[in-house]
Amino acid sequence: MLNFLNKSCANTITLMNIIFGSFSLICTVHGDFTNAAIFIILAVVMDGLDGKVARKLDIMSLFGKELDSLCDLVSFGVAPAILIYMQVLDPLIYSLGIIVAVFYIVCGAFRLARFNVLNISDFFVGIPITLAGSLVALVSLLAAWLPGTLILVIILLLAILMISNFKVPKF
Amino acid sequence: MLNFLNKSCANTITLMNIIFGSFSLICTVHGDFTNAAIFIILAVVMDGLDGKVARKLDIMSLFGKELDSLCDLVSFGVAPAILIYMQVLDPLIYSLGIIVAVFYIVCGAFRLARFNVLNISDFFVGIPITLAGSLVALVSLLAAWLPGTLILVIILLLAILMISNFKVPKF
Repeated sequence: MLNFLNKSCANTITLMNIIFGSFSLICTVHGDFTNAAIFIILAVVMDGLDGKVARKLDIMSLFGKELDSLCDLVSFGVAPAILIYMQVLDPLIYSLGIIVAVFYIVCGAFRLARFNVLNISDFFVGIPITLAGSLVALVSLLAAWLPGTLILVIILLLAILMISNFKVPKF
Repeated sequence: MLNFLNKSCANTITLMNIIFGSFSLICTVHGDFTNAAIFIILAVVMDGLDGKVARKLDIMSLFGKELDSLCDLVSFGVAPAILIYMQVLDPLIYSLGIIVAVFYIVCGAFRLARFNVLNISDFFVGIPITLAGSLVALVSLLAAWLPGTLILVIILLLAILMISNFKVPKF
């Protein structure tokens, strides 16, 4: 019973991650880019908390792992890509903006599927999607002071780094 | 080598699913709801084709399975929810529309995580997200002839049916 409650607690935090990711998308479609970025950062906090709770309570369930990846794709793949597309890439160069945004989402999905299959516990292969999503949210908040083409290059670079074989240590 | 090529072929079709799902989102944010719905239907076609190719070539890899779920969440969870939110739910009742759209995404993620863990091959538990997403796309195409409140109820019902214990036979 206690184990069930603990698992439910961790899964509820995971669901808060996707809820904040979805709120970010809703803010983006209404043109409220600042709150869209803030919701991505709140999803990052939930993702970190969720991992901490699961490790502390020693309850890494298979269901929790699957749910976590799915939520991560929405909050750190889809939400940041659509946010930066609407805010910067679309006004910049229409078609190229679509390609870069969709490429970022595809790389995010690839990164998460590979992570689940590799199951390496010492380091990450390719930068984690949570890190990429946080950086896109940060870029979005600083967008007024950055050149559009630089933002385009950053998004492209983050997408490539996610699917790269670059080893990132776990902390 | 042939096995690698076959797997790459199936995974490429899976990626076409998420690419069409992402295109649907891009169309939605530009207010092009008809093409957004059509892209979801194209993603359904890719999802069906992908399964057929994998079964025919007998190449159901773990990576392919993980990638498939992630792509399904974007194309049949996030894309239909944001489409119907922008087209119908937001103009109808702002806050309730947000709750229903986000609830649909959360239920979609829950449904996919449970499917991957249960691993039942004879039937589905809860209606598949592909079916729910197709129906939302259909509702979107017929939205001009349907009352908004009926659409709201349909989306809510589809979300609940995804996480229900309702058994759906596999064909």
